[in-house]
Amino acid sequence: MTVWLVGAGPGDPGLVTAKGLELVRSCEALVYDVLVAPELVAEAPDDALVISRARLKQGDLNELLVELGRRGLEVVRLKGGDPFVFGRGGEEALALAAAGVPFEVVPGVSALSSVPASASIPVTHRGVSAQVTLVSGHSASGEELDYAHLARTPGTLVVFMGLNHLPAIARGLVAAGRDPHTPAAVVSNGTRPDGHSVSGTLGEIASLLDGLASPVLLVVGDVVAVGAQLAAAAAAAALPA
Amino acid sequence: MTVWLVGAGPGDPGLVTAKGLELVRSCEALVYDVLVAPELVAEAPDDALVISRARLKQGDLNELLVELGRRGLEVVRLKGGDPFVFGRGGEEALALAAAGVPFEVVPGVSALSSVPASASIPVTHRGVSAQVTLVSGHSASGEELDYAHLARTPGTLVVFMGLNHLPAIARGLVAAGRDPHTPAAVVSNGTRPDGHSVSGTLGEIASLLDGLASPVLLVVGDVVAVGAQLAAAAAAAALPA
Repeated sequence: MTVWLVGAGPGDPGLVTAKGLELVRSCEALVYDVLVAPELVAEAPDDALVISRARLKQGDLNELLVELGRRGLEVVRLKGGDPFVFGRGGEEALALAAAGVPFEVVPGVSALSSVPASASIPVTHRGVSAQVTLVSGHSASGEELDYAHLARTPGTLVVFMGLNHLPAIARGLVAAGRDPHTPAAVVSNGTRPDGHSVSGTLGEIASLLDGLASPVLLVVGDVVAVGAQLAAAAAAAALPA
Repeated sequence: MTVWLVGAGPGDPGLVTAKGLELVRSCEALVYDVLVAPELVAEAPDDALVISRARLKQGDLNELLVELGRRGLEVVRLKGGDPFVFGRGGEEALALAAAGVPFEVVPGVSALSSVPASASIPVTHRGVSAQVTLVSGHSASGEELDYAHLARTPGTLVVFMGLNHLPAIARGLVAAGRDPHTPAAVVSNGTRPDGHSVSGTLGEIASLLDGLASPVLLVVGDVVAVGAQLAAAAAAAALPA
């Protein structure tokens, strides 16, 4: 009996890990996040107990995992992205550990780099960015982001957030001194067939969001221009000579 | 004919993506990094051309990928971690695009969170850290890290670096004002069977590195203490009642 905290990856079901997929295929109970690809949920055995966590608060979810683990089941807790990157996997792990239920963490592909990659953007690039800063747009404690510090942070900024928070974050960065001409992109449903992205400057990005759907990721920094260069070169290469 | 820039993940061969593994198993040429798990290299078809990049400089490697792609082969460029997180995948992609060779990026599990996870450390944790900053210890341009800024950066700091750079980085952070009592950990060969980690305070971490082997990752922040709590609870749970 083990509860496996498994990262499902960013959306494309092919980006689950080999180990994670094997665990899903052999589990006795599967508890999955809303954003996990349905194709992965469908990989669970026919006789497995399959539970969406959509209506569960975190505390109730932790209790459910403890309860399933105590029944001696092989449980897969399938989480979007990576369990430990804004995935609250630490809380689930602590609850299981406190209850004496064995657990293991199986990392996944985080949206961090895979979602920008789906829009051709490398989050690091030699001579352009050797630093990446990830922040979440809605912190647990409700405290504001430190815009003054973030505005002066070198390299690439990646913001995990709801679409509706994005304009305020872009405004906050510019108000705190970040150059409004800094390249910025918003990627919606990255790595999925319905993925879509927009790019422009930090100053104008909030005006380009019409029609985008959550989940989204905001990328700020000169790597966005590298992405544009890469996309243009790839498009030119695809044209007949 | 496509050149696939595939992330092999952090070390454990089970952490390759399902899509990446399928590409390795069906490729005609495989060009792999030194740190890629040998188990994955062994998954290439018997008749595939298998080339280590160990002795190739980046420019020569880019040329090799272009050349293989132009011959119409299905080429897998298997890279440690994720191609776009300190993986120089952007440079390879630009070289391929400029040469008119079709390419695709297949993201992988970055060391970023998976290596700390192998030492029970979540890089984000509600109420503890809602920000993660990744830096590379040896930047391309040779410029020093901005210790004054990094020392004041909230949340978790993850440093991708050679073991020999670590003492200078820890000293630099403390000299720039980071509290020497900040929890810190160094994880060696994370996610591999020979993985090992040490933890302590930022002030003492450089004195705890005896016997560690590269590759290593440095994690600085209060999440290291969450990891210790998690490891202790899990160990207590594993004891007979």
